[in-house]
Amino acid sequence: MTLNILFAALPERWGEYEAPLRAALDALGQDYVLSTEMAADQVDYMIYAPNSTVQDFTPYTRLKAVLNIWAGVEAIVGNQTLTVPLTRMVDTEGLTRGMVEWVTGHVLRHHLGMDAHIVNPDHAWAPTVPPLAPERPVAILGFGALGQACARALTGLGFPVTGWSRSAKSIEGLTSDHGPDGLKRVLQNAQIVVLLMPDTPETANTLNAETLSWMPKGAFVINPGRGPLIDDAALIAALDSGQIAHATLDVFRTEPLPKDDPFWAHPKVTVTPHIAADTRPASAAKVLAENIRRSEASEPLLYEVDRTAGY
Amino acid sequence: MTLNILFAALPERWGEYEAPLRAALDALGQDYVLSTEMAADQVDYMIYAPNSTVQDFTPYTRLKAVLNIWAGVEAIVGNQTLTVPLTRMVDTEGLTRGMVEWVTGHVLRHHLGMDAHIVNPDHAWAPTVPPLAPERPVAILGFGALGQACARALTGLGFPVTGWSRSAKSIEGLTSDHGPDGLKRVLQNAQIVVLLMPDTPETANTLNAETLSWMPKGAFVINPGRGPLIDDAALIAALDSGQIAHATLDVFRTEPLPKDDPFWAHPKVTVTPHIAADTRPASAAKVLAENIRRSEASEPLLYEVDRTAGY
Repeated sequence: MTLNILFAALPERWGEYEAPLRAALDALGQDYVLSTEMAADQVDYMIYAPNSTVQDFTPYTRLKAVLNIWAGVEAIVGNQTLTVPLTRMVDTEGLTRGMVEWVTGHVLRHHLGMDAHIVNPDHAWAPTVPPLAPERPVAILGFGALGQACARALTGLGFPVTGWSRSAKSIEGLTSDHGPDGLKRVLQNAQIVVLLMPDTPETANTLNAETLSWMPKGAFVINPGRGPLIDDAALIAALDSGQIAHATLDVFRTEPLPKDDPFWAHPKVTVTPHIAADTRPASAAKVLAENIRRSEASEPLLYEVDRTAGY
Repeated sequence: MTLNILFAALPERWGEYEAPLRAALDALGQDYVLSTEMAADQVDYMIYAPNSTVQDFTPYTRLKAVLNIWAGVEAIVGNQTLTVPLTRMVDTEGLTRGMVEWVTGHVLRHHLGMDAHIVNPDHAWAPTVPPLAPERPVAILGFGALGQACARALTGLGFPVTGWSRSAKSIEGLTSDHGPDGLKRVLQNAQIVVLLMPDTPETANTLNAETLSWMPKGAFVINPGRGPLIDDAALIAALDSGQIAHATLDVFRTEPLPKDDPFWAHPKVTVTPHIAADTRPASAAKVLAENIRRSEASEPLLYEVDRTAGY
């Protein structure tokens, strides 16, 4: 039996998703039709983004499940016309790999002093050789799955990495510290700090005037975690004084970062537009195909939304 | 017995070397004096750079060996007043680690498209997410010790890496190809090419108009190997046509790169000043201390210069 799969998301997404989806669906070994246009009463599965033009699911009489390509489902979970199982996207592979690549890349960028060569209007041939990774201690604040994955990659390159978390964690092959005293020890020793904590009332302003002053002068701050982890004004003061050499920030209290935010124009700040970790079509397509396989096999779906809880 | 060790190199080097040398000498557990000034007839060992003010070794009557901090000894090997053993610096640890860090950093930089965020005068919030490393094939031309070390680091981060060498090599855990046909296969598949071949008549202009045309449009070129590996004019033409998206070059036919060289001003070229791999004080100090230990123990010195061969 041929499965009819409707792709109901913005046209840009179709450009990104079509090839990886076909690859993942081909691997299931079942006949299928995948298209952005299909008679509503012929659709078996809908691959969906909540900003799709499809908002009334009533005509989709044969629909077995709606599979989101977004992590967030708040815009669709209350839709009364949607009665079949709904899944959200949890692209663990894409999120973790992306975070490790972004963090490793920006740690190496600051470690190697790349910016002085990327922007060198005077064409200065100035060979200064940075220390090697074993002489560049890195702290990772927040030592969950993402922090540990980044720590493994950086440790593999020779950096002495210390992970920090609120409560003690013992992770095979990695060094960690914890609690308020541990935070001071870790920051006092770190030339590069990477923030990977969740956004909770306890983690707000973890980097503030006091904690930034604990770091060695000329340290680097990298934030791919959450905007509120940093007291923005304290960071700018520390950059202006030279206490912090440079900050590379991927997340902000308001996103997109407003045009008048002082981070944009600050010569010691690099803004990246919340790209450190994102769902990637190649790995997301595998999750979508796996859920179609599970549905056909009457197995429980991955990441099925609990309509009562709302996520 | 206290060993008297004279540091005879430029004052800048003393600033870099004093602390790591003391750390490495302390580890020998033998009394020593390390200084930049010492009565000539009291000196047991001289840690030396050929541009030192010491050019007449006659007054150094007690000297046991001259230990270079440079790899090149051509400026000193013919000095007739130097009759004690002479060693050159081979800082395998520093050279290899430095190369792996530089190559990994610049591969990640191009892979992640960092430059668009580092230089973003319009303050554009433009979240485009790059593919993940498994979708970004990397070729390493020249698959000796340095090439293999870089391949291992990049493979560890998930990049599909293929090493290429003139004759076949089978390296555990790494993928490689060889010979002229292999070069075409490797380049046709590579979105990033890293050049790590030696400079020989056979390797000159390995990247030229024809071989650059084999690469996928928009590929990246990274050269930390030797300047003559690239036909410079062909590379500039490929950058201008868009065939190559960007080149990051650490080595050149003439160094320092002349002010009027077109690479300096080209918007798609990043020049780094021959820093990818260099002797590093921390690891070089260990080699120097090890040679003092060997000399005192009457063991053969590491990297002793053959005065007849000249190196």
